[in-house]
Amino acid sequence: MSQLRQSPLTKEWVIMAAERGKPPDQMRIKKERTAPKAYESTCPFCPGNEQMTPAELQRVSAPGGEGWQLRVVPNKYPVLSLEALPNRVIRRTHRSIDGAGAQEVIIETPNHSLTTALLSEDQVLTILRSYRDCFIRLSEDSRIAQVTIFKNHGPIAGASLQHPHSQVIAGPVVSSQLRATYQAALNHWDEFGECVFCAILKDELDGEKRIVVWGDAFVAFEPFASVRPFTTHIFPRRHHASFGDIRDEELKDLARVLHSILRKIYVGLNDPDFNYTIVTAPAEASGSKYYHWYLSIVPRIAEVSAGLELGSGTLINTVLPEVAAEFLRNIEAEKEFRLPLESNPV
Amino acid sequence: MSQLRQSPLTKEWVIMAAERGKPPDQMRIKKERTAPKAYESTCPFCPGNEQMTPAELQRVSAPGGEGWQLRVVPNKYPVLSLEALPNRVIRRTHRSIDGAGAQEVIIETPNHSLTTALLSEDQVLTILRSYRDCFIRLSEDSRIAQVTIFKNHGPIAGASLQHPHSQVIAGPVVSSQLRATYQAALNHWDEFGECVFCAILKDELDGEKRIVVWGDAFVAFEPFASVRPFTTHIFPRRHHASFGDIRDEELKDLARVLHSILRKIYVGLNDPDFNYTIVTAPAEASGSKYYHWYLSIVPRIAEVSAGLELGSGTLINTVLPEVAAEFLRNIEAEKEFRLPLESNPV
Repeated sequence: MSQLRQSPLTKEWVIMAAERGKPPDQMRIKKERTAPKAYESTCPFCPGNEQMTPAELQRVSAPGGEGWQLRVVPNKYPVLSLEALPNRVIRRTHRSIDGAGAQEVIIETPNHSLTTALLSEDQVLTILRSYRDCFIRLSEDSRIAQVTIFKNHGPIAGASLQHPHSQVIAGPVVSSQLRATYQAALNHWDEFGECVFCAILKDELDGEKRIVVWGDAFVAFEPFASVRPFTTHIFPRRHHASFGDIRDEELKDLARVLHSILRKIYVGLNDPDFNYTIVTAPAEASGSKYYHWYLSIVPRIAEVSAGLELGSGTLINTVLPEVAAEFLRNIEAEKEFRLPLESNPV
Repeated sequence: MSQLRQSPLTKEWVIMAAERGKPPDQMRIKKERTAPKAYESTCPFCPGNEQMTPAELQRVSAPGGEGWQLRVVPNKYPVLSLEALPNRVIRRTHRSIDGAGAQEVIIETPNHSLTTALLSEDQVLTILRSYRDCFIRLSEDSRIAQVTIFKNHGPIAGASLQHPHSQVIAGPVVSSQLRATYQAALNHWDEFGECVFCAILKDELDGEKRIVVWGDAFVAFEPFASVRPFTTHIFPRRHHASFGDIRDEELKDLARVLHSILRKIYVGLNDPDFNYTIVTAPAEASGSKYYHWYLSIVPRIAEVSAGLELGSGTLINTVLPEVAAEFLRNIEAEKEFRLPLESNPV
């Protein structure tokens, strides 16, 4: 029999219909990996093509000396711009704001062919450090209400360029999704006098069956009311509301846990397309006792019943999070890990 | 410059980034239509294969006499079942309900190859009448909190079978999406003392530029804060909260308006995959002064920035609803309309 589960964060009900789905080991992406090229002459993110992007906002030099390891540049075709003022028109049924904001791209490595799972832990740390820098810098602008850092890997996940990159979007409003979670978190505080995220983490650590990776500062687990197969949340153990407040030693552990999860997904599901996002309170709400940031990873391996989800908000997941967690826990990524041909890690 | 617009129904902010998109006439689906077969021997919805579906819940006989025009059957692999009781487990962070509910399929025509746009207005009316019957019948069960009627057309829209069909899902909870709209509608009543849906309809009819079809009882328009290109809403002019209360003469006008919109989309965008859903208050809330049901159609022609939407709830639309409305208004569907080869309308 199926079961409906409610997310304590979004209050969404998800229909868990495991009997409709396949076992996890049959959900591996069926594709041959072609030998990828480390350099593409037409790629704006490849070394030597730096003039194809707008002027650099940040550069991390390569550890060996020559060249760069990471670059941050403005999006060439941004949907929001800080040249605009967030002017508002508020009518009874028509409300609008001019598109003030920023959209940036973090070029994660000079190597065109790599993906985060193929980088070293140190390289992932460099990327995360850059996320924090971007978040803090953009949060300082008084016009910005929400900064979102996310990564699309692969075309199904919405990536239009293959070269490994993350994106930052900073806008003048708080999304209704974040507002709903805020409200649910406040209601939980109201009832139980505790942070709902801290409570989830405690309950998951007590139960153990949905945990995938235990880190010193971070824990990766499959959420109880997981919306899509293999959705993975990485929660900081220490209560803090804003990603901008992550400490240096915590960044290191996050790099380790994120790297480990992405390798498990890469090996276990055969490099599926995925999205991940840093879901965080705005920087100015950093003292909030009831909100708590986290990182959410969603592999794009199963199609959802689009009509149902779009129209009614009804969600169906065919892989139980307990089953997904066991599968990912058992993937010995380091042992089974092979670099694809011709990928020279830099 | 881009603009953010807020939906008065969901309170979602949508970034309207028209300069990022193509003009509507370049958004036509690029595909050759192959000659479809009117009958497939392996299709469980084709005539002669009635034993491949669970026992019929409703049958409409063909007007000429022999055979059927429409059948309603239970879903063979339902994710919810009325053999279950909606037992609840409520813990601090883990809340679940057993999967009590129903899932049904409305087989819209015996002809395998047709789509709603290729049916006659009378056939669409028969389908809509069946929607109302299903809605009323399922709403009577005390375990059911929400009945959703929707259609997925084409694989991108989530249809796993080609034979024209709609789906009904009836579950023991109200989705967070419907609850959010309810709350927004109540807030609007609180501020303005009017139904927000009636106010939207009045403002759109005054402005005219987003209207696509003016019917006697229904109006089709592109919403001001449209989330996806060519999203179309069909609102009843008469205030009523629940689809179950639609009157016979209104059903006829809805058939005309829906048929007209689907033909315009079929001709103008070259038969794109689409979803439509009846977004309605539950039957028992039929007297609500502040809620108002509608039908929402979403063609699946442009990919969204999946990571952004999934992670942060930020939405981007590259076609302004005013532009989409003008495009659809100007499609003379009846004039340009050609049946594909070998499709014998029944």
